[in-house]
Amino acid sequence: MQRYFALAKEQNKLILNNDDLYHIKTVMRMRENDQIEVVFNNQLYIGKLLTDYQVEVVKTIPTDINDKQIILLIPLLKESKMDLILQKSTELGVSKIIPVELERSIVKLDVLRAEKRLIRWQKILREASEQSKRIDIPIITPIKKIDNLTDLNGLKIVCSTNERQNTLKKVLKNNKGYDKIIVLIGPEGGLTDKEENNLVNKGFIKVTLGQLIMRVETVPLFVLSALNYESMVVK
Amino acid sequence: MQRYFALAKEQNKLILNNDDLYHIKTVMRMRENDQIEVVFNNQLYIGKLLTDYQVEVVKTIPTDINDKQIILLIPLLKESKMDLILQKSTELGVSKIIPVELERSIVKLDVLRAEKRLIRWQKILREASEQSKRIDIPIITPIKKIDNLTDLNGLKIVCSTNERQNTLKKVLKNNKGYDKIIVLIGPEGGLTDKEENNLVNKGFIKVTLGQLIMRVETVPLFVLSALNYESMVVK
Repeated sequence: MQRYFALAKEQNKLILNNDDLYHIKTVMRMRENDQIEVVFNNQLYIGKLLTDYQVEVVKTIPTDINDKQIILLIPLLKESKMDLILQKSTELGVSKIIPVELERSIVKLDVLRAEKRLIRWQKILREASEQSKRIDIPIITPIKKIDNLTDLNGLKIVCSTNERQNTLKKVLKNNKGYDKIIVLIGPEGGLTDKEENNLVNKGFIKVTLGQLIMRVETVPLFVLSALNYESMVVK
Repeated sequence: MQRYFALAKEQNKLILNNDDLYHIKTVMRMRENDQIEVVFNNQLYIGKLLTDYQVEVVKTIPTDINDKQIILLIPLLKESKMDLILQKSTELGVSKIIPVELERSIVKLDVLRAEKRLIRWQKILREASEQSKRIDIPIITPIKKIDNLTDLNGLKIVCSTNERQNTLKKVLKNNKGYDKIIVLIGPEGGLTDKEENNLVNKGFIKVTLGQLIMRVETVPLFVLSALNYESMVVK
């Protein structure tokens, strides 16, 4: 069943935005009484289309909320790479994405373009959340500098090409009980020593992901896959 | 340093193909005495450009050969998705890719198009191997049917949306000593019951990857990341 995120809920009516209404009417060609899945406020509903394309709640569906928060700090990359990261990270359960301005980032955005880009990014995250049938949409923040990062409590990891010994797996094994993990990924040219030291001073642990030489946009997918794999049940 | 795969080695000369020579001359604008990395026969060399753009071996570099073979069986998908899988799987250490014809695959290729596509796929794998500084290029075979799969000895896994209990992690924990793993990923519409039974009869173990709802092209990246993560050193 097609899933949409509602703007609001008023009594037993779910309010969708115009893009979604267009999708329902014109792309999906749905009719009166057809049912859709609608999420509002992390709650999943089954909704029924009325004649005027209002959506009436038919049923409330119980859902699990994932209690482990995964926050990705990623460098600014060119658009197609950012899009891939946003889409795939949503599929792989990311909670929040913070684009970070780093010294060796090739891409720089002025304020106006950054604002436009943020709106685009939010749209990608929303659509990917619908496709992956999430009950939340990952948050994306405006671009930040390392020194302006706040709310950094949790297990903090930085993927470093200078680290040889301390594997991601080792760090996760030694920190099993975390409920929030923050992972920073460097740009194509790597982090500068100054940036790495700055992060270590803020409590980030340097980890290696092994011998593979990955493109930058592959790294978040690797890390998210590993986190999901690590949390799988073995019994 | 830029890496290329050689066609042949004759005494202390490495023979590159025309595309690579074009890249060296025109894109990279390299000159006499500039050095490149060249792989031939899973052996890495440092080569030096001569006046006539022949490449002379300067040094032989010792390299580790990965002893764990990872074979992916993937459904036929539309071109952009296939390209993504090939590129990212190469980064993530795949050994061999076998495209499989499955009942619910949307994409079908006739013989002529399949042959052309295979050449394209090989090119993508080669370029990704150069970028990821591999010493081997993943093999890709022509499209096969499940019943024509041969050489299936090793740990065999099929990612199934019908499986709830048996996680990938559990299966890997119970089969630590494998040196060859074969992973089959179904198409968008999933495998048919008949296909799943057929695979189970051939010794495939059904596994779940957890609660995430991923696009098909994300699944191989998830599995390869998990395999790499599982083999990380913890000490």
